[in-house]
Amino acid sequence: MCEANAYRVGDGEETLIMESVDVVEPDGSDAWRLASIFGEQKNIRGRIKRMHLVDHKILFEEIEEQN
Amino acid sequence: MCEANAYRVGDGEETLIMESVDVVEPDGSDAWRLASIFGEQKNIRGRIKRMHLVDHKILFEEIEEQN
Repeated sequence: MCEANAYRVGDGEETLIMESVDVVEPDGSDAWRLASIFGEQKNIRGRIKRMHLVDHKILFEEIEEQN
Repeated sequence: MCEANAYRVGDGEETLIMESVDVVEPDGSDAWRLASIFGEQKNIRGRIKRMHLVDHKILFEEIEEQN
């Protein structure tokens, strides 16, 4: 399976937001809806800093989780 | 390998922009740098419409390839 893990980057640290993310969709300006292969969903505000798919990583910065 | 293919979506069609994308990084507002596992690079303007990682797809809309 080729899902990725989503992390918040800040203060030089990566904090896991969601594991095994399958779908990433914009949800307005600088806001995203994440859905995992397990059916979990999260809406976050923030910007994509970098995606590194071979490393299974999606990094977000300046984020705020909404639910 | 868990890279994805990047497509432009418009007029109900998906057109391949780059195969086997590994890295996606913002390059300003609504602009992105793509890098494939083969070392190919492309800069595009446009918005992410949807990423579906299990399907190996990144869909961009309203895009314009810059190089």
